[in-house]
Amino acid sequence: MSLKKFALLSICCLIFSLPYAMSQHKAKYKAVYQLNSDDDKTIRNTLRNIKNALEDPRLKGKVKIELVAHGGGVTAYKKDHPYETLLKELQDKGVILVECENTLRERNIAKEELFPFIQYTPSGNGELIIKQKEGWAYVHP
Amino acid sequence: MSLKKFALLSICCLIFSLPYAMSQHKAKYKAVYQLNSDDDKTIRNTLRNIKNALEDPRLKGKVKIELVAHGGGVTAYKKDHPYETLLKELQDKGVILVECENTLRERNIAKEELFPFIQYTPSGNGELIIKQKEGWAYVHP
Amino acid sequence: MSLKKFALLSICCLIFSLPYAMSQHKAKYKAVYQLNSDDDKTIRNTLRNIKNALEDPRLKGKVKIELVAHGGGVTAYKKDHPYETLLKELQDKGVILVECENTLRERNIAKEELFPFIQYTPSGNGELIIKQKEGWAYVHP
Repeated sequence: MSLKKFALLSICCLIFSLPYAMSQHKAKYKAVYQLNSDDDKTIRNTLRNIKNALEDPRLKGKVKIELVAHGGGVTAYKKDHPYETLLKELQDKGVILVECENTLRERNIAKEELFPFIQYTPSGNGELIIKQKEGWAYVHP
Repeated sequence: MSLKKFALLSICCLIFSLPYAMSQHKAKYKAVYQLNSDDDKTIRNTLRNIKNALEDPRLKGKVKIELVAHGGGVTAYKKDHPYETLLKELQDKGVILVECENTLRERNIAKEELFPFIQYTPSGNGELIIKQKEGWAYVHP
Repeated sequence: MSLKKFALLSICCLIFSLPYAMSQHKAKYKAVYQLNSDDDKTIRNTLRNIKNALEDPRLKGKVKIELVAHGGGVTAYKKDHPYETLLKELQDKGVILVECENTLRERNIAKEELFPFIQYTPSGNGELIIKQKEGWAYVHP
């Protein structure tokens, strides 16, 4: 590879990785939220709490949030429940929505029953532990 | 400024900042407590839990605690509720009592309805995330 | 002591401390669980959650867990309640089971009423704060 080609490639790499690097730089704060209840009030409170954290003037544009549902919390992600709009609103703001696969197995729920934009983790509890080890704050609403 | 004046000023600064530095030094441990329930039993348990933590022989004189109320937790700080004595007792021991301003807005509550010794934070959830980032432990009673 | 004796002693120390050092090395992740409810469903959920975390493929063999009971959570450790098998199963996998001594005093419960394999801490809340300071994740089921 000529020096010119190499230089060009380097510049391309730099340009394409820039937005990612910048978005990472922005997320000074990270928080993992736990949802383990099927109670409508608790689900709505949790989603509103996340919204409030995103809009806190001290955090705005500087916080990355992941919501981990396990146990009864799976209710929030089910197609036959009324939380799609609220969830999408959060996802549009960068919130990662994660469901515990142990819960699906224990409750005999197929992934097809959940909204297609949900992500999965082997165990919700494992996820809470790993994220904290990586420096994420933990909030149990 | 003469060297003499400068030396004098330096000494003054040192003397006045000493108690602060010492109090900071003492607080090896820091913990932020969350209160988001208006249930009397939960409120009393939370306040007693904080007291127990302050009196733990391993923490005594070495722990700084902040109580963050949001959602239903605002009840604990309202003048027309019976928690003033318990709160003042904790405040006398250095506990910071903080209320979420989002909650006040959402529930149409004026600051005048709360005890005058309460402090405020833009969002309770933001406060929980920021404090953990700064190394505070988090307890949800 | 001759040099030969000293060398022999050193080697023995090394050999005996090796398994301990290895087990410590393995526990890359540490988590402290809180149990402050006497509700049967909450107790069983908490114990199952811990089991799920232990078996998470990302954590298996690399996580150390401590369960701290205080307040109503003491119920899980009482001989006249049906959780012995579940608790022993967790203990066999290395889980440390700890009870708050403040709770025993407040509720007038003797240590003899709890299973003999339970350990004690001056205050459950203090324990949660200290463990987090030492880098343990915190989970409130």
